[in-house]
Amino acid sequence: MSVESVIIEMAKAARAAAVQIAKCPSQKKDEVLLAIADKLEAESQRIKAENQKDVERAKEMGLTSAMIDRLTVKDATIKSMADGLREVVQLEDPVGAVTKTWKRPNGLQVSKMRIPLGVIGMIYESRPNVTIDAAGLCFKAGNAVILRGGSEAIQSNQVLADIISAVLKEKGLPEKAVQLVPIRDREAVNILLAQEEYIDLIIPRGGEGLIRFVVEHSKIPVLKHYKGVCHIFVDESADFAMAETICLNAKVQRPGVCNAMETMLVHKSAAQQFLPRMAKRFFEAKVELRGCPETCRIVSEAKPAVEEDWSAEYLDLILAVRVVESMDEALAHIAKYSSNHTEAIVTSDYERASRFVREADSSVVLVNASTRFNDGGQLGLGAEIGISTSKLHAFGPMGLEELTTTKFVVLGNGQIRN
Amino acid sequence: MSVESVIIEMAKAARAAAVQIAKCPSQKKDEVLLAIADKLEAESQRIKAENQKDVERAKEMGLTSAMIDRLTVKDATIKSMADGLREVVQLEDPVGAVTKTWKRPNGLQVSKMRIPLGVIGMIYESRPNVTIDAAGLCFKAGNAVILRGGSEAIQSNQVLADIISAVLKEKGLPEKAVQLVPIRDREAVNILLAQEEYIDLIIPRGGEGLIRFVVEHSKIPVLKHYKGVCHIFVDESADFAMAETICLNAKVQRPGVCNAMETMLVHKSAAQQFLPRMAKRFFEAKVELRGCPETCRIVSEAKPAVEEDWSAEYLDLILAVRVVESMDEALAHIAKYSSNHTEAIVTSDYERASRFVREADSSVVLVNASTRFNDGGQLGLGAEIGISTSKLHAFGPMGLEELTTTKFVVLGNGQIRN
Repeated sequence: MSVESVIIEMAKAARAAAVQIAKCPSQKKDEVLLAIADKLEAESQRIKAENQKDVERAKEMGLTSAMIDRLTVKDATIKSMADGLREVVQLEDPVGAVTKTWKRPNGLQVSKMRIPLGVIGMIYESRPNVTIDAAGLCFKAGNAVILRGGSEAIQSNQVLADIISAVLKEKGLPEKAVQLVPIRDREAVNILLAQEEYIDLIIPRGGEGLIRFVVEHSKIPVLKHYKGVCHIFVDESADFAMAETICLNAKVQRPGVCNAMETMLVHKSAAQQFLPRMAKRFFEAKVELRGCPETCRIVSEAKPAVEEDWSAEYLDLILAVRVVESMDEALAHIAKYSSNHTEAIVTSDYERASRFVREADSSVVLVNASTRFNDGGQLGLGAEIGISTSKLHAFGPMGLEELTTTKFVVLGNGQIRN
Repeated sequence: MSVESVIIEMAKAARAAAVQIAKCPSQKKDEVLLAIADKLEAESQRIKAENQKDVERAKEMGLTSAMIDRLTVKDATIKSMADGLREVVQLEDPVGAVTKTWKRPNGLQVSKMRIPLGVIGMIYESRPNVTIDAAGLCFKAGNAVILRGGSEAIQSNQVLADIISAVLKEKGLPEKAVQLVPIRDREAVNILLAQEEYIDLIIPRGGEGLIRFVVEHSKIPVLKHYKGVCHIFVDESADFAMAETICLNAKVQRPGVCNAMETMLVHKSAAQQFLPRMAKRFFEAKVELRGCPETCRIVSEAKPAVEEDWSAEYLDLILAVRVVESMDEALAHIAKYSSNHTEAIVTSDYERASRFVREADSSVVLVNASTRFNDGGQLGLGAEIGISTSKLHAFGPMGLEELTTTKFVVLGNGQIRN
């Protein structure tokens, strides 16, 4: 069979499975998720053996040790995948929930009811645990899913998908509700992205290159997450001790993630007093500072920032620092360089807090808290399937609800239109 | 200037204007909408004069009288555009509304707040009133809009857009918040669809050809409405008098619109009794019936349906009719041929009503009411900008709320992540 017919067959099978999964009661879905969790643990030897094949191939191909590390599945990885599914069981099933209901003057009762999206295509890189996380969330929200993981993890992903399908079959549900694309060739992705007749949504997870490729080629709507160039604005009225704690946490607690701070903006009236003590803490934590001229004047150890620094997502212990004349300038800087991901202000001024909340145009806007809270779990949505930085359908962390949509249900007793 | 630079300049100006419009208080927006309504009426001579140029050109080009009719702006058209804006003033401003709020164990207060989408591109055909309707709704929801109407209406659309911009300027708001593409060439649409850096959403309104073209070429998310192949299933337990009234209304009250019924499915146990009396009413209303063999056996005047009839959107006094063995067969027929627009059941059976509501996978599902109620105004959303038949972001009629999204607002007092 050609790559094209393999993918089209998968897409058709997913569409058919989606109809069944959409009707599946919550209790049954939870039973399946728990069974998958148990089976992952029971089959840990088999999973590790398949994973070992990927790891050996990766070594032969000369992948970096960081990449091999991300690829490697250990007992703890399997335990964490299984526990992740058990957590999804605890989340409320959004399907069938009536989000709103009202009555029309003619007696029609109108409601909006949550329904699954249908078929979701997940395209991701390297880490095999995404296979389980994504499958668990899509399934609980009543969707079928087609998974296309990184080609370097294909054996590991295949055994994980096989375990899921085996449980689905055993429980009398369509095994094609969760499928993995078994083809390394990138052509498979192109063909997948053209199946708009069968697939409702594409979620890419990975580097900016992958996401741009998917957006460029997809005929199917894409929920995308480009990057996080997150700012904290330390206002002149900030409690400086609080600002220090928050900024340090936002930069160093886990610098390699999208919700870490990349640029710190400091009000000029605060700079002279705040910057030296803040810089000291950053240097103790081995953070390199790249500052505007005023920052470099106050903190002599800071390196001069160049234009590229203001839009950099370092994902590392590096921070761009700029002293701003006013709140207007801070907001203008954010509007110009932001990735619409996360922005925070530290202030004790009510009016400035309100204005920042209204005007900072990002998916999560915080007052007096670390940017690191832009995370589905931290915000109380449960597990997340990604963070959307585009506005349509979902903006910010996407949990189960964001994997559904709503339809209108209209109950009448003979109404017609005049 | 090249077409490309014209469009890019417009897109950049729209993005800058959007920032201002997003902050504009409701009261001010309503004041602007009322002023536009008044100015439309005050400048009716100028509007009609510009429209006359389009109409004459259309006649020279040999457009059909139906098309010229749709293109022609009369005093009543202007009155109705102005009144439409006055109705939008009455609708609640969705921007800034907090749709949900909750507290986290660490004391963080998390909310979801409605915000404008940003810049919307509207691509539509012929009727100039869409210029006013779309501009009014986008503006009230805090968005900037770029309008690209049919080339045959370009003079009419330009004078309408000029009137809006004049009012915006007069009220101290950016006049580029509403712009019309002043270029007839279709190249302009292609370039517009590539401005994903500046435009957040494209809404096409028109025939299937236009919509497919937009979906195919857009790098920007598209909210699309393909067509309405709407079904009514008359169950064996239906009140036949009610079913007759509903089916007649759904087919003949306005056959040329997307929420008119195109296929009627009748349970075999109801067919013998229901079909002859229903057919009589349809024939009286000059509806042509195209039936399955069983329908043709019962109603001898019905023409035999061919396969294409089951997926046809007639938009005319023609109806496909099929007798089904069971509710399963009715749902399977709908699943196969539906356009995910509108489906209705007429039944007095509680279990069947519930099952239909759960399983019919369309944007509006009705029990014992006409399909003609799939309409923003009729469902109580106020004016609508279109009906989405794809599931992402909005499914069904789109009112003001669907022209917004939500962001997360997080209020803390020093929280950091451990």
